[in-house]
Amino acid sequence: MRTTIERRDLGPRDVLIEITYAGICHSDIHTVRGEWGKVPYPLTVGHEIVGHVTEVGAEVTRHAVGDRVGVGCMVNSCRECENCKAGMEQYCLDGNTGTYAAVDKDGTVTQGGYSTHIVVVEDFVLRVPESIPHEAAAPLLCAGITTYSPLAHWKAGPGKKVAVVGLGGLGHMGVKIAVAMGAEVTVLSQTLSKKDEGLAFGAQHYHATGDPATFETLKNTFDLIINTVSAPIDMGAYLSLLRLDGTFVSVGAPPEPLPIQVFTLFNNRRSFAGSSIGGIAETQEMLDFCAERGIAPQVEVISADEVNDAYERVLKSDVRYRFVIDIASLR
Amino acid sequence: MRTTIERRDLGPRDVLIEITYAGICHSDIHTVRGEWGKVPYPLTVGHEIVGHVTEVGAEVTRHAVGDRVGVGCMVNSCRECENCKAGMEQYCLDGNTGTYAAVDKDGTVTQGGYSTHIVVVEDFVLRVPESIPHEAAAPLLCAGITTYSPLAHWKAGPGKKVAVVGLGGLGHMGVKIAVAMGAEVTVLSQTLSKKDEGLAFGAQHYHATGDPATFETLKNTFDLIINTVSAPIDMGAYLSLLRLDGTFVSVGAPPEPLPIQVFTLFNNRRSFAGSSIGGIAETQEMLDFCAERGIAPQVEVISADEVNDAYERVLKSDVRYRFVIDIASLR
Repeated sequence: MRTTIERRDLGPRDVLIEITYAGICHSDIHTVRGEWGKVPYPLTVGHEIVGHVTEVGAEVTRHAVGDRVGVGCMVNSCRECENCKAGMEQYCLDGNTGTYAAVDKDGTVTQGGYSTHIVVVEDFVLRVPESIPHEAAAPLLCAGITTYSPLAHWKAGPGKKVAVVGLGGLGHMGVKIAVAMGAEVTVLSQTLSKKDEGLAFGAQHYHATGDPATFETLKNTFDLIINTVSAPIDMGAYLSLLRLDGTFVSVGAPPEPLPIQVFTLFNNRRSFAGSSIGGIAETQEMLDFCAERGIAPQVEVISADEVNDAYERVLKSDVRYRFVIDIASLR
Repeated sequence: MRTTIERRDLGPRDVLIEITYAGICHSDIHTVRGEWGKVPYPLTVGHEIVGHVTEVGAEVTRHAVGDRVGVGCMVNSCRECENCKAGMEQYCLDGNTGTYAAVDKDGTVTQGGYSTHIVVVEDFVLRVPESIPHEAAAPLLCAGITTYSPLAHWKAGPGKKVAVVGLGGLGHMGVKIAVAMGAEVTVLSQTLSKKDEGLAFGAQHYHATGDPATFETLKNTFDLIINTVSAPIDMGAYLSLLRLDGTFVSVGAPPEPLPIQVFTLFNNRRSFAGSSIGGIAETQEMLDFCAERGIAPQVEVISADEVNDAYERVLKSDVRYRFVIDIASLR
């Protein structure tokens, strides 16, 4: 469905972006289908946004007309709480302003990136390095930063054994980034069907979680496990894969609570943590890191008319590895 | 019940200890009552042991006759796994040898400290500084190290806000140690009945967890929460008290799995971890730390005949704050 949404007039600190590509994130599907709560229809989703600056407000200093820029999962935050002051706007104690379906400072509902234009306050607009192809840059704004942030925070690097659970949009970025950071990377996927691709992304090891022997073989192995899967998993089995001081970080969230047996955490002094996207400065750092290392997501570019089909394919895990909408097809 | 147990003949690396005091830990009660699995009766429990060296094996170098020494929760480990090599014998991948109810290297069942003597390999015997009263030193070997280790590992210190859940044997040591480390300490106890004592131990704040307002007031507050309670608790409520990058560490373990809502971990990038006693080197560090800072548990010394009554009082939380058996009463 094509519809017309209103963007606010450009304020003095705002940037007007003409969008070129927008990635499709599983969150978009959860949201439009009402699986994450009541939806403020009409709603345009999309929080992996890339484009060009076409106009800037009078006080804008960070961006100029013509710049290649991106917008991720949030477009504002309180800027006053201790988390915002620490550059962790994603953990704003007042709640950050989501790129879509959130109530903006002016009381309107935010509208996402499946759209020709967007107006965003300059501090929440990222610079996209020239060396990253436009269509490949889009998924970095969510899938990229969501995996980069915990990998950086928990110090994935040389000498560290990292497992990535699930090889989808987030997982394949997690593998590429962890490899670039110098870690020894293992993919844990339900089957071995994507093994060749996982190894091509740089993973050294690939195991099927559908095979119980995997959990026996890999017991006490990993310093860090990044879980990109939103379905409920057997936490006891996964936690047992952590070695001394290892951390299991969920970036995917099943809606149901997960039962944790505390004795499993006693062994090896294990931790179970959560991580949500990344801060603005960290997102810029991730974009620059990916540009320097030549890392980009593997994407399938579609036209706006193909979004519904793409959703069905995402739900069937039939995507290698992220759909990106060519916004030119909307014009 | 008084009975005679056999200790092994002194091996070349063994130390014979004449026990002076043994603390009563809740684990002793769980064990003898069969709540943690089948019990290899006849069994003597007790893993907070203090005494004097009365004989040493030919190759012993660390201890000499007459030394004041202590033994904690373990008396051996494999010494070959990566955790043992890292000085974390408590996390021995082969399982450390518990001070009681474990199968020792020679195939016999280990017997604990409610006993006149014990034979322990020298590497698992701690030096007890002279400045700590004997009876007060005993609980340091379990209650002390169990709280010291996570406080040290998660860097309790100046500028850090630490909460201790439960003000029993472990909790009161957690408060004293965290205060000595320089942290700002809050006690979270079911009621305010021990408030005066908690503040006397050095805690700056004391809140009743029975009052729902506590969880509203203290939201997003703590860098570290040490949970000494073994009963199931509402993890969502406790996790919500953690500020950015805060960690909730359980040292008490309810037997039932605890349901964790992953979204609660996303906020503030929270972690839920476990911690089990401490390594041998770290236990020595803790004893030296307590001696230097003049920290000791508050104990109630009882005779061997009073153990059963003491157990009942532990179960009713009617102890200030640790029972210690005067082993002279056994002779």
